[in-house]
Amino acid sequence: MPTLRDVYAARRHVYRYLKPTPLYRYSGLSEATGLDLYVKHENHQPVGAFKVRGGLNLAAGLSEQQRQAGLFTASTGNHGQSIAYAARAYGLKATVAVPEGANPAKVAAMRGMGAEVLFHGPDFDTARQWIAGLAQERKGTFVGPTDDPLICGVATLALEIIEELPDVDAIIVPVGAGSGVCGTAIVAKSLNPKIEVIGVQSAQAPTQQLSWSSGRNVLGPMTTFVEGVATREPFENTQAIMRKYLDDFVLIEDTDTRDSLRLLIEHTRNLPEGAAGLPLAAAMALRDRLVGKKVVIDFCGGNASMDELRSLLVN
Amino acid sequence: MPTLRDVYAARRHVYRYLKPTPLYRYSGLSEATGLDLYVKHENHQPVGAFKVRGGLNLAAGLSEQQRQAGLFTASTGNHGQSIAYAARAYGLKATVAVPEGANPAKVAAMRGMGAEVLFHGPDFDTARQWIAGLAQERKGTFVGPTDDPLICGVATLALEIIEELPDVDAIIVPVGAGSGVCGTAIVAKSLNPKIEVIGVQSAQAPTQQLSWSSGRNVLGPMTTFVEGVATREPFENTQAIMRKYLDDFVLIEDTDTRDSLRLLIEHTRNLPEGAAGLPLAAAMALRDRLVGKKVVIDFCGGNASMDELRSLLVN
Repeated sequence: MPTLRDVYAARRHVYRYLKPTPLYRYSGLSEATGLDLYVKHENHQPVGAFKVRGGLNLAAGLSEQQRQAGLFTASTGNHGQSIAYAARAYGLKATVAVPEGANPAKVAAMRGMGAEVLFHGPDFDTARQWIAGLAQERKGTFVGPTDDPLICGVATLALEIIEELPDVDAIIVPVGAGSGVCGTAIVAKSLNPKIEVIGVQSAQAPTQQLSWSSGRNVLGPMTTFVEGVATREPFENTQAIMRKYLDDFVLIEDTDTRDSLRLLIEHTRNLPEGAAGLPLAAAMALRDRLVGKKVVIDFCGGNASMDELRSLLVN
Repeated sequence: MPTLRDVYAARRHVYRYLKPTPLYRYSGLSEATGLDLYVKHENHQPVGAFKVRGGLNLAAGLSEQQRQAGLFTASTGNHGQSIAYAARAYGLKATVAVPEGANPAKVAAMRGMGAEVLFHGPDFDTARQWIAGLAQERKGTFVGPTDDPLICGVATLALEIIEELPDVDAIIVPVGAGSGVCGTAIVAKSLNPKIEVIGVQSAQAPTQQLSWSSGRNVLGPMTTFVEGVATREPFENTQAIMRKYLDDFVLIEDTDTRDSLRLLIEHTRNLPEGAAGLPLAAAMALRDRLVGKKVVIDFCGGNASMDELRSLLVN
């Protein structure tokens, strides 16, 4: 299990390419929620999401042989962009498998960073299994979404929060595969166990939450519109970290997430991707417990499509 | 007329509260325009716009007596927020006059930063004249939109561009009152006269462009939807700087600005205010001349309202 010292080690690699992201307090948002609320702007990262921190740390730790053979992964979203970005930064080849019919804008973004994007199979799992096999065949490195170096890289966002706001009381992070919330929990609990770390997932995709709360692997339904938290299966390593460290893990209805996304746009004038709406909705759901406290919500990314944005504003 | 050394002096004050903003290259946007295009993200600033740099420099230079009496200004937009932010940072009182019927969200944002907002008169000019009188009466400092300390403060954005991208060929900046383009021109032309500095205004509000190109004060029509460049009268001091330094000053039809705004949202996943669309539209209009060059467009701010965003995405 990664520790705080791994995160400090990751920081050197992360800041070779990135700068700390802003932590802003919007009075309108604090008023609307009744909380002392701060927003961590991971959407300001180069690929528009926190994951880029992880890819850079992973790429920095490869052996010469691994560098030669390149990185292989599967993703239609921010993870793929993170790996593509890191590969370009380190002059490696990245090969990303996506299911047929993947979002053309995201495919173009990965290709724009020099990644080879291969279409394979009807769904994500098929693409993932296929690319893992291809990586083995070509002696390349297959990168899963919760590999330890990724967790340590993204954990640097929590160092930034605590160093800038040392009296933070609670940090709320959306949970997909779990690298973001685990990185945050490792840092926060190591530096100050009194900081509450709260995960949030969609009630329409509760697999990680159900597995965490029951202590065993549970497969829940998966019907959410929120791509970043649409997890079908629990992940062993992030479940273990969450069970050790997480104070709470709440579920939010997608309709409430949509309300929160509109509120975020209105008050921050930033574009949130779906998952970025969950921490705000969770903060409001936990309002009675959090009132008067300094609460940070993780604005994990901004990669919403034009259609998503349109549907959010019109309906 | 401010010089490069004034800008270096301003930098100390600006960075006491702010961090440099990112300069990102989006491959999709470069492909869409056929240019080697970089985006300077002033929308990532705390008040969502470049102007905050100017307010902080102005507040830092006040005498003890001026600090006591506070700042007075008129604005319904980013200028007012900048002054409110700077006043809060320095523990001063800010009084901002707005016309009756001013946008409630912007009024709330200024009040949220502790400014006193006073409604006066049917339009901006009435509010401005009234608050200038009130400032005099109370021996306070009236802050106009193009005061030299504001120009020197916002000019730090150009230092950041050139230090990060030393081989930049052209920088395109929207022109409202002119502080942004003048600050950029002073820095760029002092450091490297070969850097082209290009201003851009709406063809539906061409007063500054007509005054610049004719060399005398011209009052053009004013029917643009783009609040940030809706200038009714030319400004003496920014006209003088623009005449000395500006390479080109183009006009863009509002319909083209709207197309550019959509393109910016799609490729950068950032929310632009109207004025942020003009530099991209100008880059496309000047494409034949700029092809193969490193071009920076100033994403000056993100303070679009929900209604503006909705109308942009739906129509």
